[in-house]
Amino acid sequence: MRGVILSICPNARLVDLSHEVTPFHREQAAFVLAQAVPHFPADTIHLVVVDPGVGTRRRALAAQGRHARYVGPDNGVLGPLLDWDGPARVHAIGTPPFLPAERSATFHGRDVFAPAAAHLARGIPLDAFGPALAEDLARPFEAPVETAEAWQGQVLHVDHFGNLITNLPNALWPHLEAVEAAGRRLPLCGAYADVAAGEPGAVAGSVNRIEVFVREGSARDLLGGVAGMPVTAFKA
Amino acid sequence: MRGVILSICPNARLVDLSHEVTPFHREQAAFVLAQAVPHFPADTIHLVVVDPGVGTRRRALAAQGRHARYVGPDNGVLGPLLDWDGPARVHAIGTPPFLPAERSATFHGRDVFAPAAAHLARGIPLDAFGPALAEDLARPFEAPVETAEAWQGQVLHVDHFGNLITNLPNALWPHLEAVEAAGRRLPLCGAYADVAAGEPGAVAGSVNRIEVFVREGSARDLLGGVAGMPVTAFKA
Amino acid sequence: MRGVILSICPNARLVDLSHEVTPFHREQAAFVLAQAVPHFPADTIHLVVVDPGVGTRRRALAAQGRHARYVGPDNGVLGPLLDWDGPARVHAIGTPPFLPAERSATFHGRDVFAPAAAHLARGIPLDAFGPALAEDLARPFEAPVETAEAWQGQVLHVDHFGNLITNLPNALWPHLEAVEAAGRRLPLCGAYADVAAGEPGAVAGSVNRIEVFVREGSARDLLGGVAGMPVTAFKA
Repeated sequence: MRGVILSICPNARLVDLSHEVTPFHREQAAFVLAQAVPHFPADTIHLVVVDPGVGTRRRALAAQGRHARYVGPDNGVLGPLLDWDGPARVHAIGTPPFLPAERSATFHGRDVFAPAAAHLARGIPLDAFGPALAEDLARPFEAPVETAEAWQGQVLHVDHFGNLITNLPNALWPHLEAVEAAGRRLPLCGAYADVAAGEPGAVAGSVNRIEVFVREGSARDLLGGVAGMPVTAFKA
Repeated sequence: MRGVILSICPNARLVDLSHEVTPFHREQAAFVLAQAVPHFPADTIHLVVVDPGVGTRRRALAAQGRHARYVGPDNGVLGPLLDWDGPARVHAIGTPPFLPAERSATFHGRDVFAPAAAHLARGIPLDAFGPALAEDLARPFEAPVETAEAWQGQVLHVDHFGNLITNLPNALWPHLEAVEAAGRRLPLCGAYADVAAGEPGAVAGSVNRIEVFVREGSARDLLGGVAGMPVTAFKA
Repeated sequence: MRGVILSICPNARLVDLSHEVTPFHREQAAFVLAQAVPHFPADTIHLVVVDPGVGTRRRALAAQGRHARYVGPDNGVLGPLLDWDGPARVHAIGTPPFLPAERSATFHGRDVFAPAAAHLARGIPLDAFGPALAEDLARPFEAPVETAEAWQGQVLHVDHFGNLITNLPNALWPHLEAVEAAGRRLPLCGAYADVAAGEPGAVAGSVNRIEVFVREGSARDLLGGVAGMPVTAFKA
C-alpha cells in the first residue's frame, strides 16, 4: 500500500496509526481511529483497512469532514468518526479508474483504498470518485446502558499494555463510586501509581474513556480482559 | 539502520516493508519483497537484511534491475527479484569504505547494507562498491511439481491474518477442481466471504499466488499452517 | 503522538526506534536508546516514553547534549545517554504552555513529551521549557562486578531474535576464556555461524556488549533468557 501511494503521490507523508487491531474487529478499529484523528493536522487523509467483507459488494467510501478526510470500507469503521466530524460529504468509490476493473479479491487496501487516498492527496475532488451518499452509515459502537444505580458498559479495546479501554465516557467519572470488571470492585484512581504494583484500578483515561488497568502489569492477563467484556460503573 | 541512512543521505525517504518475517527464513523474506517491489516507484532502493550468515564470508550485493535497485546479502533473498527484474547488474560490496574494515560481526544491516543503500541513494555508481558479478545468484523458491492429476505446492509465507500463501500461481486457478491442505479438501472461493465465518477455503490471492484462508479466522491456527507445509491443487 | 508532533511542526521527520521494549522496563529502554543514538544525525531529538510513573509528580525533562537532544521522563531512561553525551544541559519541563494544565493522567507521551519535542524541533530554546537542573539524574544500569576470576554481569535486553544482550562490554573480550549463562559454558565465537545450528555461543556484539545467542535459534527459548539473568565472563 505504501508503494502504491508513493507511486501516485511521491511527496505524500505516511504515518502508521496502528498495526495492533485484532483482525476483523471493526469496533476496535473505529475506536483506535477516533482517538487519533483529532490530534492530526487538519485535512489529513485517514485511510483504514479493516475489511472482513473484502471482495463482496460492500461499498468503498471517500469522505470529507470538517476536520479531516477519510477513505475506507462502508462497514462501520468510519461511522463514529463521520458523526463527530460532520456534517461530512461522503462519496462511494465507484467510478473507473478509481474503482479499477482489474482488482484482486482479497486486498482492496492495495488496489482500491490506497490509490483513492493518494489521488485525494493529489487534489482529485470527491465528486470524481463516485456518487454522493445521503443515507446513514453503519456505526459499530454501542453506548453504555444506564440503570438506577449504574452504567453498564463494555471493553472496546485492549491496548499494547493490556489496559482495557471501555465505552464509558470520562464525563461519568465525577458521578461514580466504583467500577467493576471481572467480578472485582476496582478503586477510582487519579493515576496508575495510586495502587500498588500488580494491583488493578480504574482511571479516567487519555481518550476520554474510562480505563481498567493493572499498575506495571496487564489487566488483560489479570482480569482476562477482552473486547466486549462487561464493565459496570456504579453511581455514587 | 535508519540513523545510519539519514546520517549519510538526510533526505532519504524510509518505508518499512515488514518486520514479520520469521527470523532466518530467506524464502519468506524473498516472497515478501517480491510481492511488494512491483508496486513501489521506479528506482526505489530495496534493502533486505535477513542474514543468518552475518559475519561469515557470504558476499554483500548491490544491484540495479530494470525497475528497481537492491542491497542485501547473497543468500538467495534477492534471487527471485533479480530474475523478475533482469537483466540486472549485480556488484559485490567489497571496496572500502563501502565494506568498512571496522564492522561488527553480527549487524551488517547497520554496518554494511544501510551505508551502501544510503550511498546508492546519493548517486554513488554501482561500480564504486566492488566488482561486477556474472554468475547466477541463489534462488530459494521451489516451483510446484506437476503430476497427472495435480500440482504439488507448499506454503511460502503465513501472513499477519494467518493466511497461508502458497507457491501455486494464480494462473493455475481456471484449471482447478479443488485445493487440499492439512488433509482437508477446500472450496475454491471468489472472496473470503464465500464461506461461513470460521470455515476454510482457497482463493486466488492478491500476490498472484493461491492462498488458503479461514473466514474471519486463522488458517495457521485451524489447519496448523506453517511455511513449508504441502498444499495440493487438483486439476479439474 | 505523531499527529501532535506534525500539528506543531509539519516538516518534522519521524523515525520509530522500537516498539519492542517490555512495558515499564526502564533499563531496557535506556539500553535500546543508548545503542541507537550515536548512529543518528547530530542534533536529532530523541523522544522516549517508557513512563510507569505517568500522572505522578515525577519530572519531565528536555536536554541538549553534545551530539543530540532528548525529551522524556526523569526516571532513569535518559541517564546513561546524558552521561555519554555530556556535559548536557538539562531542563525540567514545567512552564505553561509546555507543561499544559489540561493534561491526561495516563498519556503524557501525547500531552507533554510529544509537544515539547515538536516545539524543540521548531527552535524553542531549552530555557523556555522550565528551570535548568543541576543535580544528577537517575541511571538505571548496573556495571558488572569484577572478582578474581570473572566479571559477573547480567542480561540487559532480549532482542527480536532472542539474543541476550548483556552489560558486559566488548572491551573484556580479549581477556576472556569463556562465558557462562543458565549453567552452560558457552564458546567464544567470532560470528554466529561458528557453532552448529541450534547451538548456543557468546559473541562480541554490535552494540559494544557481549551477547549470548543460539545459531538460527533463540537464546531466550533455549536458555530461558530474561532481562536481569546473570551472565558470567571468566578471565583467561
